[in-house]
Amino acid sequence: MDMEAVKQIAYEAAGQEAYAIWFLIGAALVFFMQCGFAMVETGFTRAKNAGNIIMKNLMDFSIGTPMFMLLGFALMLSENYFFGFIGKPDLQLFTKFTDPEMNWSAFTFNLVFCATAATIVSGAMAERTKFSAYCIYSAVISAVVYPIEAGWVWNSQGWLFNLGFVDFAGSAAIHSCGGVAALIGAIFLGPRIGKYVYGKDGKVEKVNAIPGHSLTLGALGTFILWFGWYGFNGAACTKLLGVGGLAAVFATTTIAPALACVTTMIFTWVKNGKPDVSMTLNASLAGLVAITAPCATVDATGASIIGIVAGILVVVVVEGLDLKLHIDDPVGAVGVHLANGAWGTIADGLFNVESGLFYGGGFHHLGVQILGEAAILAWVTVCMVITFALIKKFHGLRASKEEEIVGLDKLEHGIDSSYAGFMFAPQILTGAEEPAGDKVSADIAVPVSKGSSHPDATFHMVTIITRQSKFEDLKKAMNEINVTGMTVSNVMGCGVQHGKSEFYRGVPVDMSLLPKIKVDIVVSEVPVDLVVASAKEALYTGHIGDGKIFVYDVANVIKVRTGEEGYDALQD
Amino acid sequence: MDMEAVKQIAYEAAGQEAYAIWFLIGAALVFFMQCGFAMVETGFTRAKNAGNIIMKNLMDFSIGTPMFMLLGFALMLSENYFFGFIGKPDLQLFTKFTDPEMNWSAFTFNLVFCATAATIVSGAMAERTKFSAYCIYSAVISAVVYPIEAGWVWNSQGWLFNLGFVDFAGSAAIHSCGGVAALIGAIFLGPRIGKYVYGKDGKVEKVNAIPGHSLTLGALGTFILWFGWYGFNGAACTKLLGVGGLAAVFATTTIAPALACVTTMIFTWVKNGKPDVSMTLNASLAGLVAITAPCATVDATGASIIGIVAGILVVVVVEGLDLKLHIDDPVGAVGVHLANGAWGTIADGLFNVESGLFYGGGFHHLGVQILGEAAILAWVTVCMVITFALIKKFHGLRASKEEEIVGLDKLEHGIDSSYAGFMFAPQILTGAEEPAGDKVSADIAVPVSKGSSHPDATFHMVTIITRQSKFEDLKKAMNEINVTGMTVSNVMGCGVQHGKSEFYRGVPVDMSLLPKIKVDIVVSEVPVDLVVASAKEALYTGHIGDGKIFVYDVANVIKVRTGEEGYDALQD
Amino acid sequence: MDMEAVKQIAYEAAGQEAYAIWFLIGAALVFFMQCGFAMVETGFTRAKNAGNIIMKNLMDFSIGTPMFMLLGFALMLSENYFFGFIGKPDLQLFTKFTDPEMNWSAFTFNLVFCATAATIVSGAMAERTKFSAYCIYSAVISAVVYPIEAGWVWNSQGWLFNLGFVDFAGSAAIHSCGGVAALIGAIFLGPRIGKYVYGKDGKVEKVNAIPGHSLTLGALGTFILWFGWYGFNGAACTKLLGVGGLAAVFATTTIAPALACVTTMIFTWVKNGKPDVSMTLNASLAGLVAITAPCATVDATGASIIGIVAGILVVVVVEGLDLKLHIDDPVGAVGVHLANGAWGTIADGLFNVESGLFYGGGFHHLGVQILGEAAILAWVTVCMVITFALIKKFHGLRASKEEEIVGLDKLEHGIDSSYAGFMFAPQILTGAEEPAGDKVSADIAVPVSKGSSHPDATFHMVTIITRQSKFEDLKKAMNEINVTGMTVSNVMGCGVQHGKSEFYRGVPVDMSLLPKIKVDIVVSEVPVDLVVASAKEALYTGHIGDGKIFVYDVANVIKVRTGEEGYDALQD
Repeated sequence: MDMEAVKQIAYEAAGQEAYAIWFLIGAALVFFMQCGFAMVETGFTRAKNAGNIIMKNLMDFSIGTPMFMLLGFALMLSENYFFGFIGKPDLQLFTKFTDPEMNWSAFTFNLVFCATAATIVSGAMAERTKFSAYCIYSAVISAVVYPIEAGWVWNSQGWLFNLGFVDFAGSAAIHSCGGVAALIGAIFLGPRIGKYVYGKDGKVEKVNAIPGHSLTLGALGTFILWFGWYGFNGAACTKLLGVGGLAAVFATTTIAPALACVTTMIFTWVKNGKPDVSMTLNASLAGLVAITAPCATVDATGASIIGIVAGILVVVVVEGLDLKLHIDDPVGAVGVHLANGAWGTIADGLFNVESGLFYGGGFHHLGVQILGEAAILAWVTVCMVITFALIKKFHGLRASKEEEIVGLDKLEHGIDSSYAGFMFAPQILTGAEEPAGDKVSADIAVPVSKGSSHPDATFHMVTIITRQSKFEDLKKAMNEINVTGMTVSNVMGCGVQHGKSEFYRGVPVDMSLLPKIKVDIVVSEVPVDLVVASAKEALYTGHIGDGKIFVYDVANVIKVRTGEEGYDALQD
Repeated sequence: MDMEAVKQIAYEAAGQEAYAIWFLIGAALVFFMQCGFAMVETGFTRAKNAGNIIMKNLMDFSIGTPMFMLLGFALMLSENYFFGFIGKPDLQLFTKFTDPEMNWSAFTFNLVFCATAATIVSGAMAERTKFSAYCIYSAVISAVVYPIEAGWVWNSQGWLFNLGFVDFAGSAAIHSCGGVAALIGAIFLGPRIGKYVYGKDGKVEKVNAIPGHSLTLGALGTFILWFGWYGFNGAACTKLLGVGGLAAVFATTTIAPALACVTTMIFTWVKNGKPDVSMTLNASLAGLVAITAPCATVDATGASIIGIVAGILVVVVVEGLDLKLHIDDPVGAVGVHLANGAWGTIADGLFNVESGLFYGGGFHHLGVQILGEAAILAWVTVCMVITFALIKKFHGLRASKEEEIVGLDKLEHGIDSSYAGFMFAPQILTGAEEPAGDKVSADIAVPVSKGSSHPDATFHMVTIITRQSKFEDLKKAMNEINVTGMTVSNVMGCGVQHGKSEFYRGVPVDMSLLPKIKVDIVVSEVPVDLVVASAKEALYTGHIGDGKIFVYDVANVIKVRTGEEGYDALQD
Repeated sequence: MDMEAVKQIAYEAAGQEAYAIWFLIGAALVFFMQCGFAMVETGFTRAKNAGNIIMKNLMDFSIGTPMFMLLGFALMLSENYFFGFIGKPDLQLFTKFTDPEMNWSAFTFNLVFCATAATIVSGAMAERTKFSAYCIYSAVISAVVYPIEAGWVWNSQGWLFNLGFVDFAGSAAIHSCGGVAALIGAIFLGPRIGKYVYGKDGKVEKVNAIPGHSLTLGALGTFILWFGWYGFNGAACTKLLGVGGLAAVFATTTIAPALACVTTMIFTWVKNGKPDVSMTLNASLAGLVAITAPCATVDATGASIIGIVAGILVVVVVEGLDLKLHIDDPVGAVGVHLANGAWGTIADGLFNVESGLFYGGGFHHLGVQILGEAAILAWVTVCMVITFALIKKFHGLRASKEEEIVGLDKLEHGIDSSYAGFMFAPQILTGAEEPAGDKVSADIAVPVSKGSSHPDATFHMVTIITRQSKFEDLKKAMNEINVTGMTVSNVMGCGVQHGKSEFYRGVPVDMSLLPKIKVDIVVSEVPVDLVVASAKEALYTGHIGDGKIFVYDVANVIKVRTGEEGYDALQD
């Protein structure tokens, strides 16, 4: 053999071994993205649901694993593949692992990809989905919905594969799939309580922001996702492109999100007056999603444009969904994964250096890309509408109102707080009502005493200790009687009212101190009885824990800005 | 040379180079597990000890490094190995690093494994171990205890190695070792104050849950550990199994923890009524520990069963240890590492596809596995009992009661709070007493004034500002005089009482505002003096900072639920 | 061909493929260090600036990417390199990515290194830099400053490269560069408000510690950085050293930081009485920075000594900068990156096994190392002085006083809190004034009423509800009239005062509840008017939100420690 032949064999061997290992390292990086998703979704939602969101993310992977083993893997990658559409189920994974026929790399790699598609949805459905319903959804998408359409794209017998559809690492197969499932889930669920304020005609009058409880967790998750994305986009480079190609994938996977971030920073700065941190974090993910399909087929110019468009697109879609369509997607999953998944898939039709429209490739490849994206969206839409409709009808999809207000951690998992020991401020959601109000009606016989509380003093402090979830009602009642000034603080109430026993790691949790709010209102003589009566009406439920009202004399009141004292100081 | 011979050489070369690099990447992943352990242990314990736990984790690695360099590495892997039991100490690591004899890969890899064994213990001993005592323990296990037994398993002259003992990545050598050391440490220390409430006969009457301060940190750590585990289990695949083997290891390392999570979720749901988040996070680690020994020798069926059993086992052991044996292991280290380390080791005797009992291998291999596990447990038990006994006798093992109540961060490290700026709720540990009470006796001459506080009013608010650590005593005193209703809030007390000067990064920390609790109690006339007297007795220590009691008139009190006013409103 | 020749070709091929992939994995690990920096810097600063710091870290990478694409990469690595000093700008990155001439590996790798140099600075300039100014700085360092000096070191035509300067992974080129830029930035900015208390002569009378808001985030970041550092130091091993060399780099990269940690723990323990957690976390980074230049050229002894010195050096420099020079570097960036970058560079001149002074190499290599370090420091210093001076003159470098006190999150990014829902304690910065006071003068016509508030009672509670930022002024005013005892708590004030509308993800945030502090002061009759008048003067600004003062009667006061009642109980 001559030197060239030997070299060829040597490089072939070297590439096979090295890329085989890299493929698995890539799978580990993609697994780590589960951590990123969990942190982003937890950080961008409220503390009272943190444990629940973590659990859903963990379960996406954990439930997805047996589902993909038992069914999904064969549906997607079986060699017995029918009509370019679906594989034949089998249980070959349970044969002995030393069987050289068994490709464990492919199984592990495709499993972690499958879990990514599943986990995208949890963010859009956060803070209001019944946990058991979510487990059912998660099993369905991992077992059937994702594997079938992913087979079209990546099984060498798949119909999209054979049309020349380019979706290198899954802008369409994974992100559009997860993104459209997220959108459907969010629509089926409806918005979180307090997200939208409805007028009498049932139209949205006001959109409330519900800030997430930890921007640093959100940022941590974002960085972890970006890191993991080098595996996500890069791992599939085996054989196909060689190290030059892998390096180019790393470069495009860097350029697109970086430019998306810069674009979003500038765009929000110009539009809203300030550079928006959480949206810019989303933008990095938008750029990554958009570059996922074309990461191996576009150049630096293409990657730059794809990133810049992604940075605009994510803002427009996130805001449009919320402000115009009033669909509540707490973490922006639709804007990131659906909009940019579709954009990335189509962008390959425009910027593919071999066949893209802007690179002289004409409309053929662009057409294939649009067809593929549309087919995947249609398939997932049909499946998920059926899935969520069935869950809603036969099992229930949404957590109860009480669970949602108190927090899914507490009522679904028995966690008093995911941050035990920390103090939380009262929740504030102005006008946090559903269109059809279900408040306690004023007709209920609330025991109101009409006697004067204390006739001798000019000013009174009315101090109300009650449950936190009643703050919104109390505030509304006070506003109705023109009491606008109040001071609110968090306290722990200790009394005979015991909470229901919960278990922390199998141990019953003692609940003799319960979180309450204390509201202080200072009024002059005349309305004190009115304040007490209104507060009683607003707070009455008839259950233990309605709280107490204390009335004190106040010797004097001074308003610092004006120097007014007494009665005048209380007039705003 | 013919083509086949060339190919063979090429693949041999390719494998050697690629696996050598992968081996080191694996070591980096195992290093990263230190981060995972730190986050899990910190998240599952209280905020007041967060800095201390981080420091212990950092020190496990940092102290372990020189120990392993100076002694451990040679004891474990020296070629001068005696009786299959122990290597001859040497200092070859300090020769020039270019010496081709020096295998730096093996050193780095085994060092990060050693640190893993050491760091398991910190969780079980969290929140009450004297920091200096922990440093001593950490040095001993890294220098002597772990290296000797690990040599038995992985030194090619080790007696277990030569018996055919299978512990691919260390269910026995690392996790059982760390787990049994954790158990012994927890027993030597005793439980945290307030964990168990003792009756007059010294028996445990009540088990308190002490929830960790951040479930999200716990989840972050769990995901990092799982990610790192691909390196932990996978790195050792060098040469032995080829890429098919590595892929199979990745698959089993995925399947077992996923199924453990699903199992624990269902098991706790059925048993306690709700799916337990923190236990399910533990379950993923339990599944990973259990699959560590047999990751390269079992098939998908075996991995599934191993994971399912792990998911049950971790719950049973964590709860049994706490509720039955009253051994306080704050993070579940014994249930995760000891129980599942043993299970995984034995499971290889059952499910090993070549020699396992259920795969037709008979009892021989199972016997070897049991022998190996037992030998390692015996060795570590003997060593650790001696180590902890000596530390306890000559140095002291446990932090002082004050350090524990106030927090190790504050008194061991001078950190006012690991979360500066955040507000914390008062600590609540009902009946948080040791069997032999050491309260200030009522006989102490507490200066109690007997005069009536204020004779003219019907109701009084008694407001008590005092140190947070006295809340439990105050609550007990109030309950004894049948005062059950009180409102507790956190405040900052500003006065002449200055805290002891602490240093933050070398700069003295100003302590003129100190955290206090404010307890509001409203009582009708008669018991106001009793309340004041009882509170004084409960709070008196004679030191600055005992606090103040204020008495106010209350004009009226209304109970919302019943509409009762005045005296009646105060009767629960 | 004979077997040896074939083997040589095979190993050459295997190494090339494997190291090429490892090089890119290393780049991904270095990218992940951005996450580490973000977490360390966020954790070691205050919660009110968390979003801002995250945004700056994200922007270092995101702005750096287009800058490095458009200019930096060519300045650094162009083959058209002039005088060993600077490359010719070109836009070759925007040619088609399939061009085999384009080395995307080198681009990606050097980009992530560049971003590391840039991001070091954000920590030292944290909590007070105008965001737009920081973006400009970040663009300049990535486009020009770093690429030019890095070209000297790593371009094969660079003058330092050809002098034999050893800076394997960048103690000088990256860490000294970022560290000296950090120092200059911190000097240009001046200290954070409240960091130093100035006497009448303008000299610093007191240094305040400003603890970071999350030690666990700091620890997380530290562990991530250490993990990423295996890529940082290891990736460049391609071809140069083979796997033995890579393993040795892993070993030195482990040994140095571990010993630095142990050293700092002991050093702070001896010096300040307690082992300092945050400083020990810094120490690990110091050891890593110091070993970065010599990681491939020193042995275990050298690495140990380098680490031990780093552990001392970081403490001395961090404390010296703060306590002696009064330069405010919130996260210790100067001590970690500048001091230890220089130390590591010089250490190679001492411990290089081939040419170090202590290894018989004489003074030549040491001289080259000192020359290179000095040249880089000089270059960066000149550039950054010009850059910051121009920014300061034409754009403004520092955030406004109000932005700094309220928090950059709120006023620069419109984030009410990066931790929505959590309660925060009032900020406490004793004597938090600039040398030239700019308080509201007492001459301003504050409307003070002189009438007695309530003549009949012996004791009064004066309750003040006001804006948090006024606490320091209030405390000072109270101390001046000898009122030392007060109780402070956080409350939410609800009134007609609406906050300015901010946007969270495009949605206006409702601000009807604003954070306030409540200060309770109990005084006997005489000074009540004085307290009210002083408080009014201290709190008056004339804007809505100055707050209210309430006066109540107090029936009695009891001091627990002494049993004193009434007037006596109030005398401290």
